[in-house]
Amino acid sequence: MTSPNRKLVYHVATSLDGFLACSDDTYGPFPQEGDHIVDYFATLQSDYDTIIMGRRTYEVGLRLGVTDPYPFLQTYVLSRSLPEADYGPVRIVREGWRELVGELKQTPGKPICLGGGGELASSLLNEGLVDELLIKLNPLLLGVGKPLDPRLAAPQALTLLDTKRYQSGVLLLRYGVVQAS
Amino acid sequence: MTSPNRKLVYHVATSLDGFLACSDDTYGPFPQEGDHIVDYFATLQSDYDTIIMGRRTYEVGLRLGVTDPYPFLQTYVLSRSLPEADYGPVRIVREGWRELVGELKQTPGKPICLGGGGELASSLLNEGLVDELLIKLNPLLLGVGKPLDPRLAAPQALTLLDTKRYQSGVLLLRYGVVQAS
Repeated sequence: MTSPNRKLVYHVATSLDGFLACSDDTYGPFPQEGDHIVDYFATLQSDYDTIIMGRRTYEVGLRLGVTDPYPFLQTYVLSRSLPEADYGPVRIVREGWRELVGELKQTPGKPICLGGGGELASSLLNEGLVDELLIKLNPLLLGVGKPLDPRLAAPQALTLLDTKRYQSGVLLLRYGVVQAS
Repeated sequence: MTSPNRKLVYHVATSLDGFLACSDDTYGPFPQEGDHIVDYFATLQSDYDTIIMGRRTYEVGLRLGVTDPYPFLQTYVLSRSLPEADYGPVRIVREGWRELVGELKQTPGKPICLGGGGELASSLLNEGLVDELLIKLNPLLLGVGKPLDPRLAAPQALTLLDTKRYQSGVLLLRYGVVQAS
């Protein structure tokens, strides 16, 4: 009998020059309509049951009064500094992130979505905990912004697994993370 | 009779996180073998007759004693600081870059390859002189390095024109630059 081992998938939108968002954590220049957006929300519901994100990513919705941005998923926000408050069914995890992610990966279920941001994702990549990247590559250059992986400790080889092209010009690219042996 | 108007194509390899090279202008983690490399050199010969690059890109070859890295192309190096020396058929252009690029684009011929680096490309993008990006997207994260477009003045929308997937996992992505009207 094999033990369950859920994949952790870093699933984010980037510009062609590798930014997740503008420097102020807004997404203005990213196209907010199109077939890639429809598919994204359908995929979130069908492919995952859990999402993990960092504070700044969570705060994008929170600033609009949204405490549970993905009510169809169990949401974990990994943050040491988020104020004590009622975040509804969202679980705020203040420490022991590595252990949490390790435990979630060993729990039966669908793959786990890592929704950003880049600092959290870099740390989890460095720990060897990220299995795949699912990148929505937007037809856009930003020049400056929030990078995909600002804390990556060393170059990380990937394997291209799948590609999908949307009418909107967004490409959905699935990569496997080549783990050091 | 229409006037000739050659396209300027920013044709470079990047990592998935938007870097052209490592911070020291080396390319170690980029896969140097594979079908994408063979196709790249064939394309350089068939699709262009002229290449433009900045000093640091040119110096990558120069450090290895190569003064004319693409002998099948007319090479222009745009640099204010390259020492006076014999660079063979390579033309060193110390000023008037905008005018040079504008003149080349009005001269009959094949599209012009802009081979990097990112600072030069950003400047030419800001001037509205770049028509297309042809990105060899490598299955690789670097975390740090030389960015694709560090001096871009404002977000730049693109149009996805074509994609090609190599066995090596490299994706060749052609984008049109949406010029401000």
